Amino acid sequence: MIEKYSINTNKQSEMIHITHKVRQAVQKTGIQEGIAVIYCPHTTAGITINEGADPDVVHDILMKFDKIFPWKDKDYLHAEGNSAAHIKASCMGSSNTIPITGGQLLLGTWQSIYFCEFDGPRHRTYYVKVMEG
Amino acid sequence: MIEKYSINTNKQSEMIHITHKVRQAVQKTGIQEGIAVIYCPHTTAGITINEGADPDVVHDILMKFDKIFPWKDKDYLHAEGNSAAHIKASCMGSSNTIPITGGQLLLGTWQSIYFCEFDGPRHRTYYVKVMEG
Amino acid sequence: MIEKYSINTNKQSEMIHITHKVRQAVQKTGIQEGIAVIYCPHTTAGITINEGADPDVVHDILMKFDKIFPWKDKDYLHAEGNSAAHIKASCMGSSNTIPITGGQLLLGTWQSIYFCEFDGPRHRTYYVKVMEG
Repeated sequence: MIEKYSINTNKQSEMIHITHKVRQAVQKTGIQEGIAVIYCPHTTAGITINEGADPDVVHDILMKFDKIFPWKDKDYLHAEGNSAAHIKASCMGSSNTIPITGGQLLLGTWQSIYFCEFDGPRHRTYYVKVMEG
Repeated sequence: MIEKYSINTNKQSEMIHITHKVRQAVQKTGIQEGIAVIYCPHTTAGITINEGADPDVVHDILMKFDKIFPWKDKDYLHAEGNSAAHIKASCMGSSNTIPITGGQLLLGTWQSIYFCEFDGPRHRTYYVKVMEG
Repeated sequence: MIEKYSINTNKQSEMIHITHKVRQAVQKTGIQEGIAVIYCPHTTAGITINEGADPDVVHDILMKFDKIFPWKDKDYLHAEGNSAAHIKASCMGSSNTIPITGGQLLLGTWQSIYFCEFDGPRHRTYYVKVMEG
């Protein structure tokens, strides 16, 4: 009832569709009623749900995040230089929880699930935990 | 064990109390120990928990969000023009999970649950999923 | 299957490691497969997961949050004067959900769980709810 997925990211900032993987994980369990928890075990990446139809939405989210949390700030102390990525990760969040009903994720018409890379490119991992109830 | 609610929003940006609806959903199940997941299936709206006593707190949250994520930005590409609402939705989050104990939501004294509209007015939906355990 | 913890915060803004407490709560239940929900019942504090190795990451997150959400804004109405703390709380979120497998939290190598104080110092509370499934 827990699935682990690997993903290769290609850019410093990137949002990658993972909805199909989460759907597969849910179907594999056969669970009809419950929740799916999508979990990111990294500190410079996260999980969010947003529009999947127009890729310009993803562009705009990442662009605005770069303006609000710029890569450089004279007051950053962290020696790795990726503090902006850590802050973005906390703002997006490490996980998302979606209800399952009738064996399906209760996503809205325009909703897609995204793995959010903020310090790529890297090899990354995420988990889908399905709970019945 | 899952309830669907409809809500009409009245402004472009608005936070609407839904605590009483979530309480009803919990009581209807009769579940004494577990969690409640409040889920928003929209990409320009979200769910948050914050102070319910002084409406000025809601004013200040929405006002500051408008300053940080202004409606206009020359670098936005999304043709619908509502990218700020998409970004706010991801920052607030699509869901919240609250423990239930003794048949009651474990909300703090000052906490209220809010449906957050960022691109209204619209007709909206949200779900309350209650899990026992 | 729900544990309540008390914590004293020491600064206005502070992120305090609580991973060991959450681990204890999980082990106490003996649950091997499930989820842990860490819940903050306050409206000027939150829960996040981020790097635990280098304390400079915490410094940088709190520093940047202070720049983005400054304590003073001429348009704040809330008489208590702590609107920035309320906004930070909603951005971080009131809870986090982490899968449990093999009796262990599925945290990544660098991940720690933090109680985030944004209006301290205060006496605070948080809950760890463990669900089997």
